[in-house]
Amino acid sequence: MAKLTDEQFMREALALAQRARGRTAPNPLVGAVVVARGGQVIGRGYHHGPGRAHAEILALKQAGDAARGATLFVTLEPCAHHGRTPACAPRVVQSGVRRVVAAMSDPNPKVAGRGFEILKKAGIQVVSGVLESEARDMNLPYLKHITTGLPYIIIKGAMTLDGKIAAPDGSSKWITSEQARRDTHELRRDADAILVGANTLLLDDPGLTCRLPGRPPQPLRVVLDGSLRTRPSLKFFKNANDGKSLIFTREDADQRKIKRLRDAGCSVVQVPADAQGRLKIKAVIRELGRRDVMCLLVEGGGAVHDAFFRARAADKVVFYVAPKVLGGAHSRSIVSGAGFGSVDKCLGLKFESVTQLGPDLKIQAVPVRP
Amino acid sequence: MAKLTDEQFMREALALAQRARGRTAPNPLVGAVVVARGGQVIGRGYHHGPGRAHAEILALKQAGDAARGATLFVTLEPCAHHGRTPACAPRVVQSGVRRVVAAMSDPNPKVAGRGFEILKKAGIQVVSGVLESEARDMNLPYLKHITTGLPYIIIKGAMTLDGKIAAPDGSSKWITSEQARRDTHELRRDADAILVGANTLLLDDPGLTCRLPGRPPQPLRVVLDGSLRTRPSLKFFKNANDGKSLIFTREDADQRKIKRLRDAGCSVVQVPADAQGRLKIKAVIRELGRRDVMCLLVEGGGAVHDAFFRARAADKVVFYVAPKVLGGAHSRSIVSGAGFGSVDKCLGLKFESVTQLGPDLKIQAVPVRP
Repeated sequence: MAKLTDEQFMREALALAQRARGRTAPNPLVGAVVVARGGQVIGRGYHHGPGRAHAEILALKQAGDAARGATLFVTLEPCAHHGRTPACAPRVVQSGVRRVVAAMSDPNPKVAGRGFEILKKAGIQVVSGVLESEARDMNLPYLKHITTGLPYIIIKGAMTLDGKIAAPDGSSKWITSEQARRDTHELRRDADAILVGANTLLLDDPGLTCRLPGRPPQPLRVVLDGSLRTRPSLKFFKNANDGKSLIFTREDADQRKIKRLRDAGCSVVQVPADAQGRLKIKAVIRELGRRDVMCLLVEGGGAVHDAFFRARAADKVVFYVAPKVLGGAHSRSIVSGAGFGSVDKCLGLKFESVTQLGPDLKIQAVPVRP
Repeated sequence: MAKLTDEQFMREALALAQRARGRTAPNPLVGAVVVARGGQVIGRGYHHGPGRAHAEILALKQAGDAARGATLFVTLEPCAHHGRTPACAPRVVQSGVRRVVAAMSDPNPKVAGRGFEILKKAGIQVVSGVLESEARDMNLPYLKHITTGLPYIIIKGAMTLDGKIAAPDGSSKWITSEQARRDTHELRRDADAILVGANTLLLDDPGLTCRLPGRPPQPLRVVLDGSLRTRPSLKFFKNANDGKSLIFTREDADQRKIKRLRDAGCSVVQVPADAQGRLKIKAVIRELGRRDVMCLLVEGGGAVHDAFFRARAADKVVFYVAPKVLGGAHSRSIVSGAGFGSVDKCLGLKFESVTQLGPDLKIQAVPVRP
């Protein structure tokens, strides 16, 4: 029974954590609740984002003196280092809590068990691993970024049942339903950056914003444009001076064009290209990781998807499938480019889930590491 | 409670009917049980195929004199006409049953309520509509064929998640798993004919047989080969003299080639082509309907699928989706050909079901009539 109760409180902490989805990079989502001996919740908190207080500190502050002898539930090991804010573990000790229940330890090399050590040395009972897999799932982008410096990458696309994203004439609106498109905006809310290729920008002229109600956090907008073909009349450039517009281009790109883009407010980063002139995806994602992008949403088109798949850079695939057949040998495929060349060299995935969104299917899959 | 019992017995009759899947064309699947007043089943039967006894006659024969005063459950209205076998309705009357429960009336213009009339006139209590939708679903091919003369057409394909059926080099083995391929053989068992294009025959050299254990019925094997490019070394021609091999070609096809194919045992039918030299699908399916093909399974490739979709000839779509990405602008798509040209002209479908078969998905959909 005690175990069950631990899980119930941890579930509340996990739910609190998720209120800041899409806002915390490069920090993790963290939630915390303080529970008095009698079982009543006397403090709640979640981390709002970099430079803001950590979840456990907010929850303990709310609990005040009542925290003495209470239990702290927190979705991630309290930090042991002074970063943008002071270390949490010593402050947890000061609060007088008797017991700390964590979902998981923090793989951040600056923490990695040291937070738990501080608590244990102070005589606090420490339990870790309660709802650990839920806590991991929630923080997959943080966990990848903190351990590798690279973003967690979701390849997202909307296609007909026969794998097409556009007709030969480039027309692609709208393949999927309102419901599927709304779901896409939830993916955008959770992402720190959205990336598309220059072709998609030219053909679809997407806003690359999250248009959910309220004031959702707006991701960094990223375009791969090796030969700087994009035009300033595109929506992308309307708000380019918001500090959230980034263009990757080749090292040999036209300096005058680069200057024009920078004058429009865009950041322009030059990266190496392969023999065919395609930007090196690894260089792109390293740069995004350096810029604290924890979660990158790649929204096409087909050649960009292909480049990410062939670079083995995808962590997750989210394809929306409309109940439609477009056909056509010259229609545009959701994954085009050079491809893997033969069936036995395909990238292997594992289906995670299939859900219905209005008339459409949402298929989620993850690459199988060979 | 009486209603519930009717459904239980009808379910048994439906299960019996299905034992003859793939064997009855141009006749329907039909099952029957005879139930004594006390509720015990005293006769069971199902229709084995053309020229064989009808389900209700077999069940009544098994019941013998005990049929007097009993109830006959039958999945389709007893026939009123003397076809390959004598009419059933008068024989049901002779059996002395008190009550007949049917799942549905028979839309065959030679029956269409006349069977029920004969029973009612003889004082038998008649109920129709018990598990009607299950009975319809089981006999969709029969119902289409008897009312239109055309086969019920299933478009079947196996693709990667990105809609590819083969690499640019034509390699396509094996995209899907053993489990999905086994399921394909169940579709083949239920089909009266399997159709592929000449490209698929040349690239994949398929046997086009049902390889389930036991002695499953073998469908008619049909190839669309407008310019007679197929080679006699292909598996298709190994057993071409079994009377179950049919090639459609153009009206202007080379007569010597046609003779060679006929000498090998194939039937060759010439049909009109469009301006691009593509065989007219409507002419193909009319001919197959005339040959008593109730259920046609179209197994690709992409251009053939496209031709059937554009002819609005598909009744059902069954796509097996492997958790793989092939990519490549020049890979072969599950629906290629000319296509519908733009997103707003797509063929509209409705997803019916998604099931997991081993690592793969089986997606079933039906066209939405505009």
